[in-house]
Amino acid sequence: MKSRSDGSAATSSIRFVEERAALTPSHELRARLARFQRALRESAVEVALVVQNADLFYFSGTVQQSYLAVPVEGEPALFTRKTVARARLETALPVVPLGTVRRLPHLLRERYGVVPRRVGLELDVLPVNHLRRLEALFEGAEMVDVSPLIVGQRAVKSAYEIELIRAAGRVTIAAMERVPELLREGLTEAEFAGRVEAVARSLGHQGIIRMRGFNQEMFYGQLLAGASGVVSSFLDTPLAGTGLSPAVAQGVSFKRIGRGEPVVFDFVSVVDGYTADFTRVFSIGPLAHELVRAYDAALRIERAVVDVARPGVSCRALYERAVAVAEEEGLGSGFMGHGEGQVRFVGHGVGVELDELPVISPNGRALEEGMVFALEPKFVLPGVGAIGVENTWAVTGDGLTLLTDASEEIRYL
Amino acid sequence: MKSRSDGSAATSSIRFVEERAALTPSHELRARLARFQRALRESAVEVALVVQNADLFYFSGTVQQSYLAVPVEGEPALFTRKTVARARLETALPVVPLGTVRRLPHLLRERYGVVPRRVGLELDVLPVNHLRRLEALFEGAEMVDVSPLIVGQRAVKSAYEIELIRAAGRVTIAAMERVPELLREGLTEAEFAGRVEAVARSLGHQGIIRMRGFNQEMFYGQLLAGASGVVSSFLDTPLAGTGLSPAVAQGVSFKRIGRGEPVVFDFVSVVDGYTADFTRVFSIGPLAHELVRAYDAALRIERAVVDVARPGVSCRALYERAVAVAEEEGLGSGFMGHGEGQVRFVGHGVGVELDELPVISPNGRALEEGMVFALEPKFVLPGVGAIGVENTWAVTGDGLTLLTDASEEIRYL
Repeated sequence: MKSRSDGSAATSSIRFVEERAALTPSHELRARLARFQRALRESAVEVALVVQNADLFYFSGTVQQSYLAVPVEGEPALFTRKTVARARLETALPVVPLGTVRRLPHLLRERYGVVPRRVGLELDVLPVNHLRRLEALFEGAEMVDVSPLIVGQRAVKSAYEIELIRAAGRVTIAAMERVPELLREGLTEAEFAGRVEAVARSLGHQGIIRMRGFNQEMFYGQLLAGASGVVSSFLDTPLAGTGLSPAVAQGVSFKRIGRGEPVVFDFVSVVDGYTADFTRVFSIGPLAHELVRAYDAALRIERAVVDVARPGVSCRALYERAVAVAEEEGLGSGFMGHGEGQVRFVGHGVGVELDELPVISPNGRALEEGMVFALEPKFVLPGVGAIGVENTWAVTGDGLTLLTDASEEIRYL
Repeated sequence: MKSRSDGSAATSSIRFVEERAALTPSHELRARLARFQRALRESAVEVALVVQNADLFYFSGTVQQSYLAVPVEGEPALFTRKTVARARLETALPVVPLGTVRRLPHLLRERYGVVPRRVGLELDVLPVNHLRRLEALFEGAEMVDVSPLIVGQRAVKSAYEIELIRAAGRVTIAAMERVPELLREGLTEAEFAGRVEAVARSLGHQGIIRMRGFNQEMFYGQLLAGASGVVSSFLDTPLAGTGLSPAVAQGVSFKRIGRGEPVVFDFVSVVDGYTADFTRVFSIGPLAHELVRAYDAALRIERAVVDVARPGVSCRALYERAVAVAEEEGLGSGFMGHGEGQVRFVGHGVGVELDELPVISPNGRALEEGMVFALEPKFVLPGVGAIGVENTWAVTGDGLTLLTDASEEIRYL
């Protein structure tokens, strides 16, 4: 058992932390918090209160119900409602039992000497009523949105984070290697997905995929065969699928997987909190020439982007390069979706959430060393099917490093 | 293919809606919206704008990115950003292409004659920045929280909804019936869960489980063996488990399932958007006497609550009755968790979300006909394990109807 304390008499008989789990090292947390504090200083916030699960995990290593108080100067601390015992095992930061949120101003004054008048909050994800409760508690305080600081910081990963993303990619690749034995003609997409998901689960896939965007949801990714690949939806992705009903409107369906249709294996693994995104293509029997041609174009786009990507290059330039190759191939109208399903990006950051910065889009900014993103050139050919490739890459000092290293050949079964 | 139109030339080759999927019938939607409009009239809101996936699905039958405008009088309409084609196939309501949200005030005036001055929003789930964008668009308008109306209405189900919940329960029960062949000594919890989840998936489990509470998450439920059952977490549930890492801090782990320990099968199925919650217990070999005794107490609590539950009875009274039985058995300190992991409820509503009203708790209000809730008396015995039972029930005119009908015997393998 890994734990941060020997445990009290009351907790020593309980294994609170999975023994194979990675606890975020203390020096990681301190470095992340120090960087956040530097950014806060420029924003004139007195204390940021971090509360959303993904951010809480990033800065403290735990998602136990807490307000993580990050003062501009001094030591951050977790004010924990539930459970204190477990938070103490999971985080290297000081844990202060909170009881009820009403005690928060008082406890902050006790610890930091003042009740803050400028409070930083994650206003991109915090529900309105939650803000109003805090406004009532911190009467007259100004509530400042620190989510751009957090999202911006989280876009640039540490070496530790990059290794966790690589490990998540390994789970995807191991699950993919089992596809030849799991995929059979006549299986429904849902049956096939269940088999693959069971493998990923046994290898440590955490199940929960976190997305920051309001209403955005994802369940293991999209394993879509043939016609399913051309169905777009509410989701901000090039491929979506029908889903099992309009209630989810994405992902696998009861469609049976047939011969000669592309089976898009677009799979998201999350292990120890970190996400890798990855797509390959399988087919039972040969594929139509135009699909193979589109796949080759996707590979060419990938290479064209990877060849020039390095710190300082703008995401806009990368996106435009991708679009230019698609248009050279006469495939512009199906690139990254078709019609109103077409999305205007060719890649997105991944980390603790699936929808992180950078976005490789016309509005994207410049790459920085340490950024990690999934690059996913894909084509939707109405009436034919969808096809594409996706890998997760880390930005190094002079280019990109591949975190999801596996053959890019279409696998014919 | 089920669809609401023959499709245009551009979409007719694309199957947008899974053929086995249930489209919410027009009369269901009209009845739900009429009820909501009656409630809005009393709140003096001019137009409610419904946007969160669960509520959007409930009122319109689709989750395509939209603002559902519900005026106090007149016909509600979906103002849809993505995708319009699919929204038109999935909903019986009028669909107006939105383009960008900036056009919303203009389109509302065009359709309803005025730009509303009192706008109803789901302020319990809407992120602050989303509200601020709407405040800028509807300058000077008062933004009113209509989430209590929505959550209150959704607590009372129609006969159609109750049948969908019963169907979700059937998927859980079918998956459970496979446990004797899937559960083996020495499997990790994660391996066992993957096998069960694959079965549920093949039967139409949608994967995504929606929860309304901020930061609350769930992945298929909790399949926990022995010591895992006594581990509490941030989650508002009696049992949580270690999870595969502190990043999720709930659910299955790499713990191997051994002989003579309770395997709690707490499984949430969601099918066609509707949720059933259910718990049974398995064991490889005999269980310790005190666990069997606690399980019998859980069954007694279930019967004690079911015997008196009917419209008009307060949830507080039901909760107190449950606690009284637990205390009579000398098991009060482990009822619904232990120590700081103990939760103060014994049941919760289920529907489009897992955490609906009513809550069978000290603060709960009276039952009404049509309410559906999971009743889950459970015990945590530190150092021993956790055990309990759970069924999903509908409130009828004079009592409860069981929606998850399966033997409550502990299954020894």
